[in-house]
Amino acid sequence: MVLEVALIDVTDGSQAAFAAAYQQARHLVAQTPGCGAMRMTQGVETSTRFVLLVEWDSVQAHDAFRSSDRFGQWRALIGPHFAGPPHVEHFTDV
Amino acid sequence: MVLEVALIDVTDGSQAAFAAAYQQARHLVAQTPGCGAMRMTQGVETSTRFVLLVEWDSVQAHDAFRSSDRFGQWRALIGPHFAGPPHVEHFTDV
Repeated sequence: MVLEVALIDVTDGSQAAFAAAYQQARHLVAQTPGCGAMRMTQGVETSTRFVLLVEWDSVQAHDAFRSSDRFGQWRALIGPHFAGPPHVEHFTDV
Repeated sequence: MVLEVALIDVTDGSQAAFAAAYQQARHLVAQTPGCGAMRMTQGVETSTRFVLLVEWDSVQAHDAFRSSDRFGQWRALIGPHFAGPPHVEHFTDV
């Protein structure tokens, strides 16, 4: 199991639209084989900063999603609100 | 409930010592009033990068910990391995 941690900064004023787009797009990730729990969170100190946490069976499972048509649909929904490219890394429990 | 997300970079070569210090120090946070689940994770792509995730009842509960003697003990154990100041923010579920 690996944890995807994605730091996403959205443009100021688009926070609510981004959250709505996430609710609409969420299933595209959540229903992907190898995807476990999925959680989007919004910054308290900086409301334009979001952190997406996704449990994957493996980095390969996440890579397979990123190579799929579903990724294009996911990004088409949430991507227009990005202030820049998300910063995505994988982590394992200590 | 708020989620603390702490990005911690440690000095290269100190990864194992940091993980051991965390196991020793963990209870200082975990047993603090207002602290829920706690999870330390290590980077797959960058092994010197760790992400600490802590559920707090509120930002105030976390602040109370940071003002306590327990915080000094926690930092005395894990802090020597830091490559720089951790980046700490709070998030709420979308």
